[in-house]
Amino acid sequence: MKNLVIGQSGGPTAVINASLSGAVRAWKESGQAGHVLGMRNGIEGFLADQVIDLSETLSERDLTLLAHTPAAYLGSCRYKLPEDLQDAVYPAIFDNLREMNIGFFLYIGGNDSMDTVDKLSRYAAMTGSDVRFIGIPKTIDNDLVLTDHTPGFGSAAKYVAATVREITLDASVYQQKAVTIVEIMGRHAGWLTAASVLARKFEGDNPYLIYLPETPFSLEQFAADLEHAFTKSPQVVVCVSEGIADAGGTFVCEYSDAAKLDSFGHKMLTGCGEILESFVRDRFSVKARSIELNVNQRCSGMLASETDIREAAFAGAEGVKAALAGETGKMIAFHREPGEPYQITCRPQNVTEICNKEKKFPQEWISPTSNDILPAFLPYVLPLIQGEPAHTIENGLPTYLYQK
Amino acid sequence: MKNLVIGQSGGPTAVINASLSGAVRAWKESGQAGHVLGMRNGIEGFLADQVIDLSETLSERDLTLLAHTPAAYLGSCRYKLPEDLQDAVYPAIFDNLREMNIGFFLYIGGNDSMDTVDKLSRYAAMTGSDVRFIGIPKTIDNDLVLTDHTPGFGSAAKYVAATVREITLDASVYQQKAVTIVEIMGRHAGWLTAASVLARKFEGDNPYLIYLPETPFSLEQFAADLEHAFTKSPQVVVCVSEGIADAGGTFVCEYSDAAKLDSFGHKMLTGCGEILESFVRDRFSVKARSIELNVNQRCSGMLASETDIREAAFAGAEGVKAALAGETGKMIAFHREPGEPYQITCRPQNVTEICNKEKKFPQEWISPTSNDILPAFLPYVLPLIQGEPAHTIENGLPTYLYQK
Repeated sequence: MKNLVIGQSGGPTAVINASLSGAVRAWKESGQAGHVLGMRNGIEGFLADQVIDLSETLSERDLTLLAHTPAAYLGSCRYKLPEDLQDAVYPAIFDNLREMNIGFFLYIGGNDSMDTVDKLSRYAAMTGSDVRFIGIPKTIDNDLVLTDHTPGFGSAAKYVAATVREITLDASVYQQKAVTIVEIMGRHAGWLTAASVLARKFEGDNPYLIYLPETPFSLEQFAADLEHAFTKSPQVVVCVSEGIADAGGTFVCEYSDAAKLDSFGHKMLTGCGEILESFVRDRFSVKARSIELNVNQRCSGMLASETDIREAAFAGAEGVKAALAGETGKMIAFHREPGEPYQITCRPQNVTEICNKEKKFPQEWISPTSNDILPAFLPYVLPLIQGEPAHTIENGLPTYLYQK
Repeated sequence: MKNLVIGQSGGPTAVINASLSGAVRAWKESGQAGHVLGMRNGIEGFLADQVIDLSETLSERDLTLLAHTPAAYLGSCRYKLPEDLQDAVYPAIFDNLREMNIGFFLYIGGNDSMDTVDKLSRYAAMTGSDVRFIGIPKTIDNDLVLTDHTPGFGSAAKYVAATVREITLDASVYQQKAVTIVEIMGRHAGWLTAASVLARKFEGDNPYLIYLPETPFSLEQFAADLEHAFTKSPQVVVCVSEGIADAGGTFVCEYSDAAKLDSFGHKMLTGCGEILESFVRDRFSVKARSIELNVNQRCSGMLASETDIREAAFAGAEGVKAALAGETGKMIAFHREPGEPYQITCRPQNVTEICNKEKKFPQEWISPTSNDILPAFLPYVLPLIQGEPAHTIENGLPTYLYQK
């Protein structure tokens, strides 16, 4: 009669709720007598006893709507557990687990959330608790190791590809020379920016230049690349990761003096697009525009990938199954079966080998000139963006599930 | 055996190509022996003899793809004809019309494009030319007079509504106080920003505050409005037109010193969102983010309104019919029939009474507090955003028609 508690953590994605929906469905289908509880705002809310009973409140229709609702239905947090397992927060969490009669703890998130799963499962082992801790991967950055890819990436990649394709059409309507710079999320890993290569309608189409954080960025080389691009077309679209940095390790966005830190101590990056826009205008005296794709690249429900939604729900369901099977300290990981058609299977991996590591975009998929993505990336990424979600449309807009 | 020439002018929209597609189809269906020629880059390309034969090159499948392709297939321009009809450019244009055996001239565009139609039809009258000049309305701004609405607005409104709804979900995932400012296109008319009211999932939902250029903006009143909004929720989403200005007529974006002029002498507005973001951070010491919706609000094919696409094609077709019927100096205008269901009919209007005028958002649809949109706007706008376009999807992305 143990209950399951599930939480969402870190930045929103288009499919983090699909994982929640998949987990609730799998729990119901498992025939367990216990309830599914949802943490409000992740572990932070759980510590404050803020949980809601999802098995009581979510109907079958709700679960379908939830699977198509972007962002985080339960709310999220950016709360990092202390390194020291002797800290008083750990017994506080485990007291709550006992009081709520919880046997299974699922946490949907990225790197920092896997760190939470790792610490809680180690604390459980240390104290002889039998609560099972399972991580469900979620990040648009696609930077978790030991999994073929992460839920959230496919939808964000589809958004970037579709949106940049529209931007290249928009950028080409006038005859005059112009440079459009599109700034895409990705601090240290360029997966999402690389997806902008899909925007090309034909070989040799815009975006002509794509820069990832995996290779050093140089303003002078950028100017030379632009000169070359202008020989192909007067309108040049450039896609850059927010985290591009020069050979000395200085972020391009730090060329201005607005760098700030977020609550995890990460540098908050904004504005490399604007800095490059100014550079282009000064150097080439041409029309320049920068476009920050901003939060919609991580939270667009309308442009989500149906494959991604399905896989996210699968990951949630597999998390429940793994927990019920007695696994703990694991993250649900995707293994891509060799050959066609595209197929993934679930292989849980030790979360301690995942958290606080980053999977970079492979160097062999970056052009030798460091300003383009090679076709070898396409068989990897294309299956992940397939399918359009069947939204429930009311009055011309998608219906989403929400808590008031 | 006269030919028809058609051009696109001004900023891109999601449906300017639907008007082109509708015009080409109507011409073919009319049984005219002449050809449809397309100006490359509007009147500017026409002056340089850059035309292509659309009746020869566009198949039925192409015309369907074209109707779903955003931006401007023919290319666009921002070329203003001289006020003085004695200028040498006029005989140059009419020489080209004669040489290409053109009897009908269709121009798809906004305010400035209607000015072109007006001048050319007046020059024709002055010189006894029998070429017919017809304007097809197009602007996301919805600011043309004498028409119920303009093609392009419905799609942009749907994009704004759907995107802001996603932004409000994204903004609500954390518990901390935060302000998200969404900057929406619209220099002098707030129609598009007003459409952000559709993002609300229920009464009293975000976006809590909406500011249009039609009412004076005050930083102090904004601070008071925010204080009040914080009593409802820690997360506040604010939607502002790029062109909001204070009681003295100074644009908020001019509070920084980066204002520039475009080739029409309009002020190029950027950054009122960033200015308000800084203001909020300084005044309230809360997390603040500004999001500029940027060009995708005018050129999103994926989030276009099927009603808008259909009406844009209708406007193109009606333009051909009007020209063939001998009309000239007219713009195709929409009349909304009274009652339900929503239905529009075409009533051409004198272009000279349209160009260089602006239709503002009605004061009676703005709340007395000047920070919200009243429900009376909904019956007007909702029919315009209905329907999702049936894109041709290949490899997970929409297929568009383009010229290399």
